[in-house]
Amino acid sequence: MYKLIKQEGNARRAEFHTNRGVVQTPAFMNVATQGAIKGAVSAEDLKALNCQVMLSNTYHLHVRPGDELIKDCGGLHKFSTWEGPILTDSGGFQVFSLSSLRKISEEGVTFQSHVDGKKIFMGPEESMQIQSNLGSTIAMAFDECVENPAEHSYSKASCERTTRWLKRCKDEMARLNSLETTINREQKLFGINQGCTYKDLRIEHMKQIAELQLDGYAIGGLAVGEPTEIMYDIIENVTPYMPKDKIRYLMGVGTPANILNAVERGVDLFDCVMPSRNARHGHLFTSQGIININNKKYDHDMTPIDPECGCPVCKRYSKAYIRHLLKAEEMLAGRLLVMHNLWFYNNLMTDIRNALDEGRFHEFKKEKEIIYSTRI
Amino acid sequence: MYKLIKQEGNARRAEFHTNRGVVQTPAFMNVATQGAIKGAVSAEDLKALNCQVMLSNTYHLHVRPGDELIKDCGGLHKFSTWEGPILTDSGGFQVFSLSSLRKISEEGVTFQSHVDGKKIFMGPEESMQIQSNLGSTIAMAFDECVENPAEHSYSKASCERTTRWLKRCKDEMARLNSLETTINREQKLFGINQGCTYKDLRIEHMKQIAELQLDGYAIGGLAVGEPTEIMYDIIENVTPYMPKDKIRYLMGVGTPANILNAVERGVDLFDCVMPSRNARHGHLFTSQGIININNKKYDHDMTPIDPECGCPVCKRYSKAYIRHLLKAEEMLAGRLLVMHNLWFYNNLMTDIRNALDEGRFHEFKKEKEIIYSTRI
Repeated sequence: MYKLIKQEGNARRAEFHTNRGVVQTPAFMNVATQGAIKGAVSAEDLKALNCQVMLSNTYHLHVRPGDELIKDCGGLHKFSTWEGPILTDSGGFQVFSLSSLRKISEEGVTFQSHVDGKKIFMGPEESMQIQSNLGSTIAMAFDECVENPAEHSYSKASCERTTRWLKRCKDEMARLNSLETTINREQKLFGINQGCTYKDLRIEHMKQIAELQLDGYAIGGLAVGEPTEIMYDIIENVTPYMPKDKIRYLMGVGTPANILNAVERGVDLFDCVMPSRNARHGHLFTSQGIININNKKYDHDMTPIDPECGCPVCKRYSKAYIRHLLKAEEMLAGRLLVMHNLWFYNNLMTDIRNALDEGRFHEFKKEKEIIYSTRI
Repeated sequence: MYKLIKQEGNARRAEFHTNRGVVQTPAFMNVATQGAIKGAVSAEDLKALNCQVMLSNTYHLHVRPGDELIKDCGGLHKFSTWEGPILTDSGGFQVFSLSSLRKISEEGVTFQSHVDGKKIFMGPEESMQIQSNLGSTIAMAFDECVENPAEHSYSKASCERTTRWLKRCKDEMARLNSLETTINREQKLFGINQGCTYKDLRIEHMKQIAELQLDGYAIGGLAVGEPTEIMYDIIENVTPYMPKDKIRYLMGVGTPANILNAVERGVDLFDCVMPSRNARHGHLFTSQGIININNKKYDHDMTPIDPECGCPVCKRYSKAYIRHLLKAEEMLAGRLLVMHNLWFYNNLMTDIRNALDEGRFHEFKKEKEIIYSTRI
């Protein structure tokens, strides 16, 4: 259930209620692809980082250790020990981005496992079954992620198939949620808007899927190489056709500036590997801009990554020590860096929510989007 | 200051007082070669694992990030944020084991850095200077670690040189501790007994270094490939010549059974990379014996690594989840596994101390040395 608290322009401050607790939105979901956050960050750490939602990957967990194994173990919450809401993606994106050999039909997609090359078939029903086995709080519909750029005609046909797949997802989830052996019988389903960079297809597709009365709606297939302005333009064009009483999720996005701009355009939910991936290379978000901790100038610097940051890493460790750990290839470097960046993202969302609560989001956005994008 | 509390046969229950707190012995020192524990284990984690002493490597820290940098940063305690006692080895062992090109003279050793191939000279004074820069609580004397097997004549000459080096170490530390700019002016010095597997050399060398009235004495050059029985035999032969009022440290040892046997023979202090190294390969110590978590039989096992273990990992995570993380090459696997094994070692020492306090150490040792060595 989506409960709007306050609005500033198109930006929305809301609550999303799940059977694993209430998510305060706008919110960032922390990516645990294989059921674990990169950088040796544990479920306990996630709590300390003020993470609200963990996101895991259907495709990865199906391939290894297997969703049936996880079901036998009581589901992904019990398996990973993360007690808050979990969103699982549908596997669609990975099927199309990780597998070189794939065959797509009306039924679904046949592809090879990236782990052992084994042939796997996944369609809407299979994706729903896997996500039901994982017992996630929110399941994503199985869609086709068309590569950019794509022909208008191909994109159109793909959108139509994705709509047909979505109906099958909805039916299959209704069936699975009705079974007594299902781990989470209140599993929610989000539909995904596609249509490449064609506004007409995006809008038409959004209209179609809005009719299906799902628990939430995502915009997929963006931030895959297109210019940022095109992404913002599509969000602006699509959001008017998204149900006002449902949560909106922009998949795989993005930089702090991207998030600020998408919130301004009415998006509630985000996920991105950027904070953890950048962290592992020493690129850190701070209140003053982006720093590269590999820089020689930090080698004697006993101040925290960001003196204004309240994260467990900045409270204790210095740039000099963390830089040494990174140079010496100590695993602890990765952990501390990832923890800092995840805190930054979660804290950014808290700041956004506070700004919305206090009616000063536009001012906040204007001030921060430049600072947070600047390399210092 | 070493304060004997209780003795059972040759086994000793004692306290070792340092300016960073009291170490309850027998104790295991946790290895943080480059100023960080392997497996992304932080200084905060070490506290949670009941670690008393952290051990760091003079050679590694000299090469990277540099001991002068660490001195500029306020010393290794401030740099690493570990507040308890730190023991630094002298670099001797690494100089002889890591460097392929080295030249030894009365002055010291010239060798190549394993990081960048740079030529480095290290003698007793250099080692003391580096350890003084690091500001460790306990410094180890610079010695020659003779490879096993070695000729009696070479070993004899080496022992004599190591004694001469030890005197130079003692003088240099006295000088450094007298300087106002020295970080830890109460730094302690331990001498190291050498002599390969020759009992006559071991005893003769021990007698010589005992005269120097150092803060503690170590037995070095063992657990480098010789049969365990020979190691025990040497310990038995050397300990009668070690000062009774000084702490005794068996370097780089060992398995739980090795530790139990060495405590029985009068040793107080240990260090070993085994718990963390074995952990990273999935080999875990438990109250019932050694398990290999890679074993397929654990893939659905939702019980902890050791149901009788009180460590933070066993309190929360299952074998099935940790096995998955290890197979999926998630860094979190390494962290959880290393934490468990380090807890096991620190907890073993607590159990040994309790058994000594209660006068049942021999019984405890007899019962546990078999169990802890058994693969189950």
